[in-house]
Amino acid sequence: MELKQYVEELCASAKRASATFAALSTAKKNAILSDIADKLISGAKDIVKANLTDLENAETNGVRKTMIDRLRLDEARIKGISDSLREVAALPDPVGKGERWVRPNGLEISRVRAPLGTVAIIYEARPNVTVDAAALCIKTGNTVILRGGKEAIATNRMLAGIMREVIKAHGQDANAVCLLDDTSREGTVMLMSMRQYVDVLIPRGSKGLIRSVVENAKIPVIETGAGNCHIYIDSSADMEMALDIAVNAKMQRPSVCNAVETMLVHRDIAKEFLPMFYERTRDRSLEIRGDSEVSAILPDSSHADESDWETEYNDYILAVKIVGSVEEAVDHINKYNTGHSEAIVTNNIANAGYFQTRVDAAAVYVNASTRFTDGGEFGFGAEIGISTQKLHARGPMALRELTTDKYLINGQGQIRK
Amino acid sequence: MELKQYVEELCASAKRASATFAALSTAKKNAILSDIADKLISGAKDIVKANLTDLENAETNGVRKTMIDRLRLDEARIKGISDSLREVAALPDPVGKGERWVRPNGLEISRVRAPLGTVAIIYEARPNVTVDAAALCIKTGNTVILRGGKEAIATNRMLAGIMREVIKAHGQDANAVCLLDDTSREGTVMLMSMRQYVDVLIPRGSKGLIRSVVENAKIPVIETGAGNCHIYIDSSADMEMALDIAVNAKMQRPSVCNAVETMLVHRDIAKEFLPMFYERTRDRSLEIRGDSEVSAILPDSSHADESDWETEYNDYILAVKIVGSVEEAVDHINKYNTGHSEAIVTNNIANAGYFQTRVDAAAVYVNASTRFTDGGEFGFGAEIGISTQKLHARGPMALRELTTDKYLINGQGQIRK
Repeated sequence: MELKQYVEELCASAKRASATFAALSTAKKNAILSDIADKLISGAKDIVKANLTDLENAETNGVRKTMIDRLRLDEARIKGISDSLREVAALPDPVGKGERWVRPNGLEISRVRAPLGTVAIIYEARPNVTVDAAALCIKTGNTVILRGGKEAIATNRMLAGIMREVIKAHGQDANAVCLLDDTSREGTVMLMSMRQYVDVLIPRGSKGLIRSVVENAKIPVIETGAGNCHIYIDSSADMEMALDIAVNAKMQRPSVCNAVETMLVHRDIAKEFLPMFYERTRDRSLEIRGDSEVSAILPDSSHADESDWETEYNDYILAVKIVGSVEEAVDHINKYNTGHSEAIVTNNIANAGYFQTRVDAAAVYVNASTRFTDGGEFGFGAEIGISTQKLHARGPMALRELTTDKYLINGQGQIRK
Repeated sequence: MELKQYVEELCASAKRASATFAALSTAKKNAILSDIADKLISGAKDIVKANLTDLENAETNGVRKTMIDRLRLDEARIKGISDSLREVAALPDPVGKGERWVRPNGLEISRVRAPLGTVAIIYEARPNVTVDAAALCIKTGNTVILRGGKEAIATNRMLAGIMREVIKAHGQDANAVCLLDDTSREGTVMLMSMRQYVDVLIPRGSKGLIRSVVENAKIPVIETGAGNCHIYIDSSADMEMALDIAVNAKMQRPSVCNAVETMLVHRDIAKEFLPMFYERTRDRSLEIRGDSEVSAILPDSSHADESDWETEYNDYILAVKIVGSVEEAVDHINKYNTGHSEAIVTNNIANAGYFQTRVDAAAVYVNASTRFTDGGEFGFGAEIGISTQKLHARGPMALRELTTDKYLINGQGQIRK
């Protein structure tokens, strides 16, 4: 009961702050972001100290080493967070932008971008998300409820404290940034049910986290991150280009969501292309999984079964399938993909057009690596994730996607006949 | 088990049709719409005959008279449906529209509107929805699964049959329009769980229907229709304009979602305004509910309690509250509104701006009636409902809102460094 009251009061306070926060000028929001950037630098020692507490607890609790590395904040990383705040401050503000038209009866209608209201972010150990996510919300006039991982709670308290202090110093309600200072599962499930106060829930992190949020939330969720991405090498492809792109899309950073998991190769060029591809990747011990047709060309490949077409390896493993046409490639992709990023390498305009029109995904590439699906690479600046859903936001979820439409209608006494 | 197979196969067939249907040219889609419009006229006798079966069954089953009227299709109504198809054909096609930019590395990025894929519409007795909703989906390259009311099943079979025939005659997959030929609760709940085939679910109809869909759906839902709308008469308002707008917003058609349910009046003008408003509405027996301050001015008013502020009457009843400032009016609205349409009547620019910025709703009016929140009145043409949610679509849900974003990226061999 006490926990429930705490969570409810926290969400209500973020909601109460939202009407005024939504009305802040761009200059005011940028000044807040820039002051937070300053205070992170001047408070770096305190942040590092708080972070040490988290690191010590993590070691005591036997947390994995990779997780401990994610948790760590040193002065260089704090400088990085501070810099990215200034980058967000420098981005254009979407709020208030839109179109305006006048109806025959004289009604002036504007469709403008408006803040969503109150956004809740549920994430894991990385404490930089605490500031990065809050910055995007501040910039878009949204109030935010942050629920970080329990491993980072001391650091998150310090970071949220600094942000709240700056907001207060600007004469605004500090509850524009709220930290859920309870990392129990119970508290998080409660947060996910606060429909009357929270407008949208954004989970950031592992597949397990995202699934758990989607299943438990009573609030609209924006799903990000699942990426079973494909590359199709058409028979007309330039071989060198195809090799460069395929190697880049698979190997440059296999752990991320826009890396390729399955490569489809046209039968007419498979015997030429696959051995070249194998040459270019074998020193980095890429495991190739394919059917008997693939293993006839690449004897070192292992056997692929149905589950391989469905798997996002996020690792040095690639499923390979030989297909007879662009149609077959598109059918395979639309059957197994997660709607993230898909690429064709081709010199045939008709095939490129067919692929881009028919493949159902957020980003469909011709002759480029899938690794470009990213807010920065698209030119949007910071983003909160890559949405793989179709409603509201699809692809890089940047500032614009943290807003909604609002119609402002100005009349001179018009009534409906 | 048999029902489950049927529903699953139906949804899968609509999904299979979607990739090709998404790629149809605007000219082709318009030709299909226009041919359906023709066939409805030439087949009007058959439609009326099928409709008679529904009407007879309804009478046998003791269906309410108002419901029977909604169910009825005569030649005039069929002409109306046919005309609205031609209007949809004449509207601009949003698919493929968008922006294009080039990144410093030469990547050409286009963000274009693309069909959602497969849309399921769940509605009640009105058979015109069968054609109206399908038309909007056809125009936007979406395939559609129609689940109409059991009372209209014979009519819906006939209408869906005509549409499927025309689609087939154009060399396309008839499953672009599917009718769920089972109106059991079981079958509908199954439809609402077909996440792998259906991209979005749109309920159209009563609050009970919408609530049931929201609670049972495993697929993203777009909620439409709830409208607890307010009008605030500021102290600076032009009295005649305020009277015209308030009377229109409440009385012109009280049963619809954009009609006003609560009127807030500034204390400084309440003694002047309320008696005039009462004069203008009493011959139409409007019931006014207010607190003791209201009843001191309008002795005929009845008592309002907390539940009145929350109620969408959809009737000749109006809750009235006297407030001391625009701030108090906005706080009341943001506490009780459903995010639909809100209006202020004022001559004070600062108050108008405060109201439009702070009120959290799809449409916020200055000096005009809330009754204009409508796709036609906004200039969008046909719409599928008024969305009161913030994600994806807010306000009139017209053609644009039946699409999603898709990024098309064209390169010349770019890879990520």
